[in-house]
Amino acid sequence: MKRISIHTLKRLPRYHQYLLEQQHSGVQKVSAKQIALALELNEVQVRKDIQYVTKSPGKPKTGHITSTLVYEIETFLGYHQTNHACLIGVGHLGKALLNYEGFLEKGLEISVAFDKDETKIDQSIKQIKVLPMSQLRPICNRLKIQLAIITVPSEQAQEVTDLLIESGIKAIWNFAPTTLVVPSDVFVYQEDLSISFSVVSHHLQKLVTKGDIK
Amino acid sequence: MKRISIHTLKRLPRYHQYLLEQQHSGVQKVSAKQIALALELNEVQVRKDIQYVTKSPGKPKTGHITSTLVYEIETFLGYHQTNHACLIGVGHLGKALLNYEGFLEKGLEISVAFDKDETKIDQSIKQIKVLPMSQLRPICNRLKIQLAIITVPSEQAQEVTDLLIESGIKAIWNFAPTTLVVPSDVFVYQEDLSISFSVVSHHLQKLVTKGDIK
Repeated sequence: MKRISIHTLKRLPRYHQYLLEQQHSGVQKVSAKQIALALELNEVQVRKDIQYVTKSPGKPKTGHITSTLVYEIETFLGYHQTNHACLIGVGHLGKALLNYEGFLEKGLEISVAFDKDETKIDQSIKQIKVLPMSQLRPICNRLKIQLAIITVPSEQAQEVTDLLIESGIKAIWNFAPTTLVVPSDVFVYQEDLSISFSVVSHHLQKLVTKGDIK
Repeated sequence: MKRISIHTLKRLPRYHQYLLEQQHSGVQKVSAKQIALALELNEVQVRKDIQYVTKSPGKPKTGHITSTLVYEIETFLGYHQTNHACLIGVGHLGKALLNYEGFLEKGLEISVAFDKDETKIDQSIKQIKVLPMSQLRPICNRLKIQLAIITVPSEQAQEVTDLLIESGIKAIWNFAPTTLVVPSDVFVYQEDLSISFSVVSHHLQKLVTKGDIK
């Protein structure tokens, strides 16, 4: 597998969404140029991104077969396999993620949730059971869970992380706004909602200064 | 103002975070090369991104004065002004955002929240009052709010959007997983949590195939 940038990985779901729409509209072939135009991206970049996921170069003028490219992106991004995850911290954000509809079709299944608050134990949210922290290690081992989603407050995130690593977790999607210390074989993806806001904020400034976002 | 890509806008907060850390450690000058190395990005790209925010080209070897660059990025991203926002939909995600600590320092202040559920009206979350939908238009007008955050279920999002536009909203940060129809002078930033998951998912596949993410 070639090295791939995080930016490519984040553009691929957008191509997928666009291609799915085209497929549903009966469009049988789509070129990199069309994708670039529709999503307001650079054509060379789109072409490069697509090279990661497909062996077919696409025909110079007509491009790629839509359904094939959809399938190839899905395979590349792992939508056809199921990644079982545990979620730690059943607060507002935790509950929002447990209720989120869009994960399953992308191959993410939150199998179990944990919280240290005894009043939350044994509740079920969308059929996902909330268990006490003492169960984390045995359950992750038994279910062979490698992915954890952290939605605890910042000051508890490192302690939770240490426990997750002891429990065999290899990838962490961290929503707590704090940098986690992990061994080199554990992957952390740091979610930062305020980064999206930079795009919105810049636009609001534009309302005054009249620039443009491409 | 030059046209700027969404990718640049999303990288700038990462530079800002890194530069702040450097500044706190007493590092007085930082070059594009150092930023690129630390964040595993392309140096040419970092250099280009920085050109958007600063008039100073930076010295060829030593780079930019850390504190100046921090300030320039903050100004560019609008952290020094306050963007007042309203939030529609006080469910789990809405509550999570109302409780989120990181917005204020980036210039985002959620001033008021709205919900159609009468049992939620007049509650306060972090001193932000929940008001009925009937108050949306007069309150947004009175407070001159131009930014709205949508956290209602997908099927209600368009109806809410129409009301927001009537109320003078010019920018929408949409967390509902649905495409909104808006006039051309209204900016929508579509949040999609499952896009971040594509990065995590790709890593989990790596555990088997042993690739690498740059």
